[in-house]
This record gives sequence, C-alpha cells and structure tokens, in this order.
Amino acid sequence: MFRHFNPVELYFGSGTLEKAGGLAARYGSRALVVTGRSSMKKIGALDRLLEVLEEAGVAAEVFGQVEPNPSFATVDRGAQRARDGACDLVIGLGGGSPMDAAKAIAMCAATGRPVADFFAGGEPEDALPVLEIASTSGTGSEADRYLVLTNQETREKQGWGHRLTYPRASMVDVDLMRAMPPRLTAATGLDVFFHGLEAYVSTAATPLTELYAVEAMRLVVENLEAAYEDGENMEARTGMAWASTLAGMAIDGGRTTLLHGLEHPVSGHLDVPHGEGLAALSLAYLEFILPACPEKCARIAWLLGEEQAAENSIEGLRRLLQSVDMDGGLAELGVTEEMVDRLARDAGEARRLLETNPRPASLEDIRRLYRQSLEGG
Amino acid sequence: MFRHFNPVELYFGSGTLEKAGGLAARYGSRALVVTGRSSMKKIGALDRLLEVLEEAGVAAEVFGQVEPNPSFATVDRGAQRARDGACDLVIGLGGGSPMDAAKAIAMCAATGRPVADFFAGGEPEDALPVLEIASTSGTGSEADRYLVLTNQETREKQGWGHRLTYPRASMVDVDLMRAMPPRLTAATGLDVFFHGLEAYVSTAATPLTELYAVEAMRLVVENLEAAYEDGENMEARTGMAWASTLAGMAIDGGRTTLLHGLEHPVSGHLDVPHGEGLAALSLAYLEFILPACPEKCARIAWLLGEEQAAENSIEGLRRLLQSVDMDGGLAELGVTEEMVDRLARDAGEARRLLETNPRPASLEDIRRLYRQSLEGG
Repeated sequence: MFRHFNPVELYFGSGTLEKAGGLAARYGSRALVVTGRSSMKKIGALDRLLEVLEEAGVAAEVFGQVEPNPSFATVDRGAQRARDGACDLVIGLGGGSPMDAAKAIAMCAATGRPVADFFAGGEPEDALPVLEIASTSGTGSEADRYLVLTNQETREKQGWGHRLTYPRASMVDVDLMRAMPPRLTAATGLDVFFHGLEAYVSTAATPLTELYAVEAMRLVVENLEAAYEDGENMEARTGMAWASTLAGMAIDGGRTTLLHGLEHPVSGHLDVPHGEGLAALSLAYLEFILPACPEKCARIAWLLGEEQAAENSIEGLRRLLQSVDMDGGLAELGVTEEMVDRLARDAGEARRLLETNPRPASLEDIRRLYRQSLEGG
Repeated sequence: MFRHFNPVELYFGSGTLEKAGGLAARYGSRALVVTGRSSMKKIGALDRLLEVLEEAGVAAEVFGQVEPNPSFATVDRGAQRARDGACDLVIGLGGGSPMDAAKAIAMCAATGRPVADFFAGGEPEDALPVLEIASTSGTGSEADRYLVLTNQETREKQGWGHRLTYPRASMVDVDLMRAMPPRLTAATGLDVFFHGLEAYVSTAATPLTELYAVEAMRLVVENLEAAYEDGENMEARTGMAWASTLAGMAIDGGRTTLLHGLEHPVSGHLDVPHGEGLAALSLAYLEFILPACPEKCARIAWLLGEEQAAENSIEGLRRLLQSVDMDGGLAELGVTEEMVDRLARDAGEARRLLETNPRPASLEDIRRLYRQSLEGG
C-alpha cells in the first residue's frame, strides 16, 4: 500500500513568471516577496515580478535578505515583516534558499511562532498561502513541501515538511535560469541527480516516485554537461529545469536518504553550496549502498550510460562528476579530519534520513564515509 | 509552457478500503454512498465500507441505483437524496459509473441545480467533498476530475470536468478487483490502454502526462493478458490497477482524443461496455492518426513488443486485442450501417475530443472510421 499526494499547481516553461500576477490575486492582496540579496534584482526578475503584481492589483513588499543556507533568524525576521505589513500571501523568488525561506515565513507569519518551535516538533495550525518562482534547477522546492534551514547557533541544518507547507502554485521559469554561472549549474544539476538517485533507492520509494526519479536522472545525464558547457543552450536548460521539478516531486513522496543526511552538516558548518557537498560525498555513498540495492544500482548504471550492472554505477557516477568538474573531495571544500567527529554526530541525528536509507548506517559507518570522501574520486 | 495540477490524495494497494473511515471523518459526518445495483454488495465491499464508516462515527446513506453509463436522471435523483439526507460528503464505490456519478451528485447536491445545467455550460459554485473507492481498473476516474454521463432523452454521452470535481481522496483497493469476470477485465483493461495511448498522442500532452501514459501502456502490455487468463493473479491485477490510476492521471492533464469521441455515441445509444466500444474502433483510429504522429506511433509499437516503427503499431495493437479476445467489430456490438450517420453526428459534436486529436477529422472521416470498424480486425 502506498500514498500519493501533491497538490501544487505547477506552471513550467519559458515566461511562466508572467503568471504570478493572476495567481497571486487568487490567494491574496498583499504579498511579501522573499528573495536573495542581489541576483534576482540583477537579472530584472524582481522588477518584473513587482510589475505583474501591481498590474494584478496585488500590493507587494520585498524581503530581500535571504542568504544561501538560510537561518532560523532570517525566517523569523521575514515572518515579522509579513506580520508588520499585514501580508496575506508569501512569494518566494530565486533558488532553494528563498523558496524554502518563503515556506517557513508563511507558517511563522500565520502562527506568530518562531520557526525553531516547529523544528523542535511543534505542529503549525495554519500558514499563509505560498507561491514559488524557481530560478535555479536544483532544489525542486517548488514541487514539494520541504524546506531546509540552518540553526545559526548550533550550525545544524535540517529539513522539515508538512501538509501546510506545499506551495499553492509554482512557476518554473526557464528564462531565469540562463543567468546561472557554470559552477552553479553543475552544483544544482548534481543536486537534481542525487534527489533522483536517493528517492529511487529510498525505502519510502513508491512506483510513482520511482517513475519520477528515473526520468529525472535520465534527463540530467542527457542535459547537464550541455547546460554546463553553454548556459545559453535553452534546450539543455529546459531539460535540467524539468528534471529538477520531477526530482522535487520524487523526493516529496520518496524522500532523500543518508547522502543528504551526510551533506547537511557540511554546508551547515562551512556554508558551501549544497550540491558541491553532495558531489564530494556521493561516490563513497553509492559504494556503501550498492550491496543493499544491487538491482536499482544496475538501473542507475544503465541510466549513466554504462552496461547494466550494479558495480558500473560507480564508474558512471564518476564520469558524470568529471564531466562538470565536480570530482573534488570534501577537503577542497574545507573539511578537515578533525571535523569528522562533529559532522558525524550531526548526521547521526537526522533520523528521518537514516530511516529511508536502503542500508542501515552506524555512527562508525558515517565517520568512515566522511573520511573516505575527504579526497576526491 | 504547460500546467500540471492534480490535488487527489491517493491510497493504492491491497486493503486501502479500510482507510475510508478516517478519510471520510476528515471531510464530513454524513455520507451518501453512491454505488451500482449489486456487485459491491455481492462481494461484501459495501458492507465493509458501511462498517468502517460507522467505526469512524460517520453516518451513511446508500444510493445504490447507478446503472452502467449513468444518466442525468440518476444523478439528479442521487443529488436529491443527498439533500434530503443532509449529507455533507459523497463516497463513490465501484467502477467508473458510480465514481463518475458521485462527482456529479456532489456538485448538484451543493448547488441545488440539475446536472444538465452544467453540461449546457453552467459553472458550479460549489461541490460536496468526494471520496472514491475504485473496484475496477479501467476508468481512472479516482485520479482525475472527469465524469462521463448520458442524457437519457437524447442518448448523448459526454465527458465533463472542473476544478471542483476532483475527488479529495481515492482508494484503489486491488482486493476488490479480484471479482471482475474475464470479459470485464479485458474491456476495462483496454480502456486503460487507450487512455494511455490517447493521452500520449493528444495535442494537450505534456512531458508529465507522456510519462504517465507511456508507463500505463507498458503495464497493460505486461499484465493484461495474465489478469484476463487468471483473475486471481494478484500481481497482474495490481499491475493493471496501477496502470489504470496512472492513465487517469495522464488523461487528467493530457485528455482523451477522437477515439473516446467516437466511442461515446456507441455506448450512449447501445449501452455496450465502453471498453468494448473502444476496442472495436481502435484499429481504424490508430491507422487514421498514424501519419500525424509517426514518432509516437513508433514508440507505441515498441511498447507493444514490436520493432520500433510507426506502422508496426497496428499489428501490435491487433495482437493485444486478440490476446484478450476483443478483436470483434462494431457490428458484433449491435451497430448497423444505418446508425453511422447518427453516431457520426454525435461524435462530431464532441468538440473538445476533436481539438485534442493529433489529426483533424471531418464528418466524412468520422463516418468512414465507423464504417471501417463495423467488421473486426
């Protein structure tokens, strides 16, 4: 028996940002626009969003302070802004960080509670409606209920999701993705691949999430290198964007696993891009799970262009990482041998990501995976 | 640019009927249970549903009068029963007929309007929440917003759908499907295949509906004959049930096309099973669209186990029909040469199904497709 539920109304393609006015007017009259510090302004997306909101009669206030790996403190400040401004709607604009922050702000603004309450086990009674406008193809946050935040005091980075944190509607606008520089394209693109891979091998996988996951991986293999080599290749950009959204749908039901569990402490403590952390950990991770799900690994090998045998998945993944110059290790990201114990302790606490892993992992396994990943593959 | 939206909460697998109590209690306290005249009673499903509703504290009233190809009059009677009983929830139990009737009853009960109003272009302002429990694998109605009804006076059979006619939640309980006799298994299973095929070739197809459609066709080819030969083969039954739900998701976005448009007048006038009508028309239909979408037909050929070339799709489909003894023509279902003009006139009025067809069809084309389908393939 399995369950499937995903109520997000999704608009995908070139120019979907233009839908924001009509959709916003359906859900509110005063929007808090949540975005990062500069890139959406620089490419004109923020200004265009404000225009279409105004044309639709929706008043807007901009909260443009979301950092990469957003913190509890940022979310609480954003929620206060929404309450002060009597906003009845939250719009996330950008990559995973502003989109995740928007979901959390909507919940905190409606309940008046600090976000730490929910990460400590509290249940939200309500949330403002959220629209998301995706400008990177990585997170898939536009298509799922999850948000990942960092506790700025402990540096713990953690995922969270609830029936109330689904966006009401999302716009995946591939035109906005043209602006991603190559390194960001590679890191976010690998995040997509690992969303697909983890949802596929997850113990929470269903026939539907597997379908999404396999197609997402296939599309990454087909398009990532081309999008990395030439950011103006809109066919490749579109393929990657669709892969990202599909992978978001895959993890919404199938969840992520230990690989995300291993990465979160890395970007939580070091503020490195999430996708780069995943890449550095991925070969050791794949080798670790291989004996537990050989048939699925064989399929992954085949998707990666290798002969369909489980052990070939490693070589296939190595080639994918190399194709976008992401085959470095954790040491290059600043992780040292001395940090391994602390990282492993944090990773061991992400029980939900351990539960879904196809192979149980002890604290010793986790430490070994970090050590093995210090040097690149 | 494309849009995707499907808010149905879906429970799939053995024993999902047991979820009905908790789900019903979430949406109401007094349910109208809409079902057919006997089969759900005979296999004990109706009694079990009433038990789980009672355990959950939900009062229930049974409207057990839904005929195959349900009429406007039946829906209006059901809506009256819901209003008389002050029901705040409608539960469809059975195949496509009761599930479709439940959606329509929910809308008519909430608005107080006869269903003919909506088929004449009226917009519903409201609808009672609907739960669906699927006992056949054919219609996919549990996973989409569509309902098909017959005007008992004109014998016109027509599809209809709206944002308000999505089920809130659906249970696809494969245990209930054990009871389907072979001929029904074949007819409903081919309906699934054609939902997949039509959604795939439809001009409304999206990358997501194509993904669902291809997987649905693949599963039918893999499982239909086995489920037909041995109704107790639960692996095959489960494969067919999942194919049916996926195909419902495919047509929710991708819609059906002229093949459904051709069939509706047949079962509307003659009360034959919908899947048998589709089967009789399908070879002529596939031959007709082949020049308009050769690449997709080549993929269909491949899914049917033939070499990947467009013209092989015909032979592949013929083998599928023969494998479940459904290769007869329209004449066997009671259609005569004299009826062709009338059928064609009705089919020509289903503009929405003509719009989605990959090849435009004139009234003369439509007449020719009926004539060509009189004798089996």
